[in-house]
Amino acid sequence: MRVALAVLGTLSVAVATVWPIPAVYTSGLSNTAAPSVQIMAWYTTSSILSGAIARYNEIIGNEAFTAPADYMNGAPVTDGSIIGLSVSVTSSDETLTLDTDESYTLDVPTTGQASLTAKTVYGALRGMETFSQLLEVNGGHRFIKNTPIHIEDKPAFQHRGLLLDTARNYFPIKDIKRTLDAMSYNKMNVFHWHIVDAQSWPVESRTYPSLQKNGAYSTSMQYSYQDVQDVIGYAQERGIRVIPEFDVPGHTYIVGQSKPEIMSCLNKQPNWDTFAAEPPSGQLNIAKAAAAAFAVDIVNEYSGLFTDNVFHVGGDEVNLECWNKDSDVQTYLAGHPGSSVESLLVDFYGKVHDAVGKSGKTGMTWEETVFHTNYTPPMSTIIQTWIDETSIPKTVAKGYRSIASPASAYYLDCGHGAWLSNFDGNSWCDPFKTWMHIYNFDPLANITDAAQQKLVIGGEVALWSEQSDSTVLDARLWPRAAAMAETSWSGRRDSSGRVRTTGEVAQRLHNQRFRMLGRGINAEPMQPLWCARNPGACLLP
Amino acid sequence: MRVALAVLGTLSVAVATVWPIPAVYTSGLSNTAAPSVQIMAWYTTSSILSGAIARYNEIIGNEAFTAPADYMNGAPVTDGSIIGLSVSVTSSDETLTLDTDESYTLDVPTTGQASLTAKTVYGALRGMETFSQLLEVNGGHRFIKNTPIHIEDKPAFQHRGLLLDTARNYFPIKDIKRTLDAMSYNKMNVFHWHIVDAQSWPVESRTYPSLQKNGAYSTSMQYSYQDVQDVIGYAQERGIRVIPEFDVPGHTYIVGQSKPEIMSCLNKQPNWDTFAAEPPSGQLNIAKAAAAAFAVDIVNEYSGLFTDNVFHVGGDEVNLECWNKDSDVQTYLAGHPGSSVESLLVDFYGKVHDAVGKSGKTGMTWEETVFHTNYTPPMSTIIQTWIDETSIPKTVAKGYRSIASPASAYYLDCGHGAWLSNFDGNSWCDPFKTWMHIYNFDPLANITDAAQQKLVIGGEVALWSEQSDSTVLDARLWPRAAAMAETSWSGRRDSSGRVRTTGEVAQRLHNQRFRMLGRGINAEPMQPLWCARNPGACLLP
Repeated sequence: MRVALAVLGTLSVAVATVWPIPAVYTSGLSNTAAPSVQIMAWYTTSSILSGAIARYNEIIGNEAFTAPADYMNGAPVTDGSIIGLSVSVTSSDETLTLDTDESYTLDVPTTGQASLTAKTVYGALRGMETFSQLLEVNGGHRFIKNTPIHIEDKPAFQHRGLLLDTARNYFPIKDIKRTLDAMSYNKMNVFHWHIVDAQSWPVESRTYPSLQKNGAYSTSMQYSYQDVQDVIGYAQERGIRVIPEFDVPGHTYIVGQSKPEIMSCLNKQPNWDTFAAEPPSGQLNIAKAAAAAFAVDIVNEYSGLFTDNVFHVGGDEVNLECWNKDSDVQTYLAGHPGSSVESLLVDFYGKVHDAVGKSGKTGMTWEETVFHTNYTPPMSTIIQTWIDETSIPKTVAKGYRSIASPASAYYLDCGHGAWLSNFDGNSWCDPFKTWMHIYNFDPLANITDAAQQKLVIGGEVALWSEQSDSTVLDARLWPRAAAMAETSWSGRRDSSGRVRTTGEVAQRLHNQRFRMLGRGINAEPMQPLWCARNPGACLLP
Repeated sequence: MRVALAVLGTLSVAVATVWPIPAVYTSGLSNTAAPSVQIMAWYTTSSILSGAIARYNEIIGNEAFTAPADYMNGAPVTDGSIIGLSVSVTSSDETLTLDTDESYTLDVPTTGQASLTAKTVYGALRGMETFSQLLEVNGGHRFIKNTPIHIEDKPAFQHRGLLLDTARNYFPIKDIKRTLDAMSYNKMNVFHWHIVDAQSWPVESRTYPSLQKNGAYSTSMQYSYQDVQDVIGYAQERGIRVIPEFDVPGHTYIVGQSKPEIMSCLNKQPNWDTFAAEPPSGQLNIAKAAAAAFAVDIVNEYSGLFTDNVFHVGGDEVNLECWNKDSDVQTYLAGHPGSSVESLLVDFYGKVHDAVGKSGKTGMTWEETVFHTNYTPPMSTIIQTWIDETSIPKTVAKGYRSIASPASAYYLDCGHGAWLSNFDGNSWCDPFKTWMHIYNFDPLANITDAAQQKLVIGGEVALWSEQSDSTVLDARLWPRAAAMAETSWSGRRDSSGRVRTTGEVAQRLHNQRFRMLGRGINAEPMQPLWCARNPGACLLP
């Protein structure tokens, strides 16, 4: 057996197939036939593990991935063969949280049995995904190149998320499940479900059934409790947490279709822009105790339905004019000397975050809550930043944990032009974020203190759905979300400390895109097929 | 029967359903049931007409279009019913050219039989499309609103085209046919098939079979003669001409996979940008007689396969450095005093355009041929402009006919970011062209002379496919191409001479998008569904 070790980070074909790239990856110069690989675990009572094994056996059995650069090549000569992958998990703890251990070790010999060990079932899932990506197919032959392979892998960031807005436009459950599949192919682990917004309230409420009845776009554009539980279960089977967002007090016009008495500035027209970032305007009336009580009820109801230990309460894009021009608010202020819109908002946030804490959850909130008001959330609160990239160092400097979602890099809806019908203008967050731009973003930029760096617990790409629905979902998300998936799993630097460049990783991402296509994810093309077939030939000199 | 006439151009619901909007449209205040409408023509031997009738009977039979703004409304009370549309065509001439008469007259009474008359079968097709769009469905009821309706319609521009590049990435025949369907739903009449380019040569050549053998991406990514004939026939059945483009002398790297001896600067790396607008570089070697002879052979072969009387010979983005740095070219020039790269290029263009003329066709070419060289094409040549909007008045000032395809307005690929793997930059023609931007473009801008205005025979939206393939085709094209379809069919002004605004037409385009979705065209959403349901509520104040 010929063996040589290739060091990670060189432009070796040895690492050509796996996305995101593993932390430690050594490979040999042999090739191994893998005509019919079976994954198995000898001792397991875990339904998550046995389900994942069945799933990956199916994925591997159906795998038809041929690297585009190998179009003209046949299958390599093989020096041995493997027939199985044995999986071993040491812990029976299947709790899935921010702190879950996702590490794994994978060995693929040139001949014999491959082995995967992990501390948790979720680490095993990540390892099986990696193993599935080692498999290539060419001319009817199935093989793994550059064996023996030894991989030790673990994520650089704990929170690797994707936000989907299911309120501006609706996405059926099958779209969400397919997105969860695609996320698992990229080792992403948080589905941030921006489930309601001003335009619609698709999710069932048992506390206020009229919210869905009057707020869903139609009876076929709804999420029942059972749908939500189905999504949470499906996600957990893939090692993905589901964090719901119920955004208050802004972005709540639709609540007014059921409870107009607790609302301010409901659908002001035509000058909605005085009252909201986009139509229709409407915010909970913070001068009314019933509005805060409603928000607390929402937290109490949905913190039960959504089982993750993090609960997102929104808090973004609050519009003060909405309350400044509200006669109820002004009457309240006149009757309560010393109070102000600002103090009412601080009180409102306090009640909402208190409810989150009482429900046993960790709160998550958009950055405005800490930066645009005088409210101080509990220090356990996770702050999601979006307004600009400098919000991340500002957040961790305050001692909060930060999720990086800068619109300038991670907003997948940007660059599609303005959408108000009479406005021939650009997207507010123009231009389009290419996969290269996403890949080059450094969530740790301008943070030098190691303790503060550790507070950046991850990132989320976001698809706000004003200009998206089922017709375009996959192509808007993929392969661009995969770019963040790699930088958040693998970090931006190789084992020698050098920052990876998009030019050197492009071919692996082409591979991942074609692999995802084969698995039913309608990812958009990055380049002419000619470029995918000719690595390095489509670079700017 | 209550009757009132609504004048076109007012914001009347009476014209809410038809896209593009007819030239003359009068409607009443009745509503008409249309539970089971049959289209028929009493006397016809035309297979195009009988095929179209069968097709529209199926479309109408399956129609499920409910205007989103009517979501909360039931079906209207009806005052009568119609059961049929009788079609009458006066001419038996089925030739389809730039000069084909597409006019029609359509009458829909409140009760009785609707009637459609046209000079040609193609006019009848346009009228049947209009009729099909009058039909709405709600709560199981099928009806036509605002009857009686009288429509007199004809196009403002003769050439209403869509360019699809099937060379950077391949599109299967079924994608092309679906695109032709969608074009017919928008009364577009030219499919500009940019069938080959540097990256691939998918189409069969009987003169040089190796072009396809060595140039198609794979045996499953090809167009046979039969495929092409199938597309041409399918298009003609929908009143759509197919104009092929065989681009010479640039954009021809792929020819070098078969005939390297007639090429210059083949795939120069890494500094391809010295030689071409994008990789891979390569141009026909204009110093070699065999290169011009090859181009003439291509014209001769494909002017036979493609039956339209217009033939596009490209001519864009010629790179002089490719030849300045070519030793064969320099040797030739040294041996032929008085010659130059410029004179060689003029000679080359002359031979190509002569061949087009000898084949009995009208030439079409990109604007560089007239503006960037000293060559003077035959005055019958159609000049397609793209570089900037001022090229249109310049073209017609020279006395040429102009097709408007300004990248600044009509390039549907723009705004998706740069695609070279190591370049974190914007699209060269950033930003994204929204439907509003497309709609607002005036092809007659800065042309005051009436005779020159007449030389602007139409426009083409273009999808260059570096970042597109089957995964995203429909959403990249629709509904944006429909915006140009309306301005090129209906013109930009209503019958009172007022320029239509995107704010006032948005609801009809929403309707058209949902109608297209129902017909299997995966058009992208323009806005949140809430906006589509609430006309006028999503405008910039």
